[in-house]
Amino acid sequence: MRFADLKLSSLGLRVANARLEILDQRLLPDQEAWVEVRDHRHMVEIIKTLAVRGAPLIGVAAAMELAHAASRGESDLRAVAAELRASRPTAVNLMWAIDRMLREAADLTEASLTRVAKAIFDEDVAMCLAMGNNGAPLIQDGDGVLTICNTGGLATVGIGTAFAVLQRAFEQGRRFHVYACETRPLLQGGRLTTWELAKVGIPHTLITDSMAATLMRAGRIQCAFTGADRVSRRGDYANKIGTYNMAVLAKYHGVRFYGVAPWSTVDASCPSGEHIEIEERHADEVRGVAGSFGQVRWAPRDVAVFNPSFDVTPAELVTGLVLDRGVYKPEEFQRLF
Amino acid sequence: MRFADLKLSSLGLRVANARLEILDQRLLPDQEAWVEVRDHRHMVEIIKTLAVRGAPLIGVAAAMELAHAASRGESDLRAVAAELRASRPTAVNLMWAIDRMLREAADLTEASLTRVAKAIFDEDVAMCLAMGNNGAPLIQDGDGVLTICNTGGLATVGIGTAFAVLQRAFEQGRRFHVYACETRPLLQGGRLTTWELAKVGIPHTLITDSMAATLMRAGRIQCAFTGADRVSRRGDYANKIGTYNMAVLAKYHGVRFYGVAPWSTVDASCPSGEHIEIEERHADEVRGVAGSFGQVRWAPRDVAVFNPSFDVTPAELVTGLVLDRGVYKPEEFQRLF
Repeated sequence: MRFADLKLSSLGLRVANARLEILDQRLLPDQEAWVEVRDHRHMVEIIKTLAVRGAPLIGVAAAMELAHAASRGESDLRAVAAELRASRPTAVNLMWAIDRMLREAADLTEASLTRVAKAIFDEDVAMCLAMGNNGAPLIQDGDGVLTICNTGGLATVGIGTAFAVLQRAFEQGRRFHVYACETRPLLQGGRLTTWELAKVGIPHTLITDSMAATLMRAGRIQCAFTGADRVSRRGDYANKIGTYNMAVLAKYHGVRFYGVAPWSTVDASCPSGEHIEIEERHADEVRGVAGSFGQVRWAPRDVAVFNPSFDVTPAELVTGLVLDRGVYKPEEFQRLF
Repeated sequence: MRFADLKLSSLGLRVANARLEILDQRLLPDQEAWVEVRDHRHMVEIIKTLAVRGAPLIGVAAAMELAHAASRGESDLRAVAAELRASRPTAVNLMWAIDRMLREAADLTEASLTRVAKAIFDEDVAMCLAMGNNGAPLIQDGDGVLTICNTGGLATVGIGTAFAVLQRAFEQGRRFHVYACETRPLLQGGRLTTWELAKVGIPHTLITDSMAATLMRAGRIQCAFTGADRVSRRGDYANKIGTYNMAVLAKYHGVRFYGVAPWSTVDASCPSGEHIEIEERHADEVRGVAGSFGQVRWAPRDVAVFNPSFDVTPAELVTGLVLDRGVYKPEEFQRLF
């Protein structure tokens, strides 16, 4: 297979006619600017400057560029791979994708590299589709559906994790309304999920994170879907800060609450949520906001801040875990180990 | 009593040597700029442009300017009163204060107007102090204390409502730590409460509204104090959006939860929270942020938004109502009618 034969398309990455293009996510939601990747140095810059984001998407983008480089006749593909692999040291998926390319396409030919890059792409699409199909029946006609952060096609090359459930239910003709939490401090919900929802055409309303409780009390939300960054054997899971808040609200109001993730995020070495360490991010993220949309600070310059990047939702608040291999109640999930 | 004899001072307003000065709250927390009020037209502009805010404070400011105008020998004080009264049509306290001035200082002399304006000021101070003294014993040494929105000396001429409880407990030597919710969408917590806490010297940390749940689960919050905009006979009360969210979290985690308000906000004609109508504000407040600190929008320009200005907390989630006349459990409060 030649790289020029690939024809792939997702919300944030596309390949056609030997061109590899990346959507510059920094400019969303106002501008949809596609950038043609010139060479691997350009891709390194794209990754470093966060023009591309979302762990699975970054991995696919780097793998694609390695195949792309082979198609252009780059001489030292091992050096290209090393530069791509080092472009974002905290991105586990990135390293995993490059390592897999070097292992499964050890001859470093264009044909092999293109084949493996395409396999990584296709597997991500299939995994998202499986989560979406598994979760879609959980949404009923007339439901109000709550979600948080960004879990859709901008983070993966498929239709996402929690977002995949919404998209599949919508494609199957279910009628429902999505309430997207803006997701302070980094506003992935306000900035990206609203854009994804509009792209797919799902009716939706943006709220601040503190407004979900009022909607639940008014009977306007029946179920909630969130992503999951790391799932423990007990079914407790870490996800974007604010997820645990939503889970407590859901429990109190009798709203069904689901975590959606591929099996690859299940950490069998982690017995329970108490073993998940919570890292803190920079205080300036809470003192104001910053992005391509601008930068402002409203809080005192030196005010002390608590800024955990995620929280942990205990299994007792979870109605079910929606995985690519099926939907499990926490007690069923616990029996898998 | 002459206006020139007044010597009054609060966080947002001060009178001395015949000068009336207002803190321009739009510039907080970065700048503390005091504006000397030249005449009543200047005060109308100050009120209209939101340089002064907080219902009780606006009322006192307008009353003071009416006395101030008398001291300068303004000829038509009734016209001055009418202009001040109309400067912000939704401010009930403003109309109440001016009406009281005209009623209790009907001769419109400098002496009468100054006496009534001082009485309004002093009564607000005393009311805040009573709430603070009543609530202060509810905070224990070592407590983590949660609060939301702005309830302190910037909204009143005293030490505030919920904030008064924190301030009195602190002045009585109690050692505790305050977690201030930033209070999206308008950020009164991040911008003003942090400033007030620093001013008084109370140790504090700023969080986004979605982070309180994680702090509660970690055992770092023991009690929560919020203001109350309108209290029904049942003890259900309306307050800034996000208050109900906090109340549900507090119930789930066994955190004591208090609403703090003067008796004047108790609406005896309102039987319960279901009778409180929730108004919605402009969608742009959720699509981004705006203030003297700058203006940015991160959400799609035309995304649909739900933006209720307040929510209703039902009595069953409330540990106690802290009023200027005492602290009442909801069932005790209900027996007052």
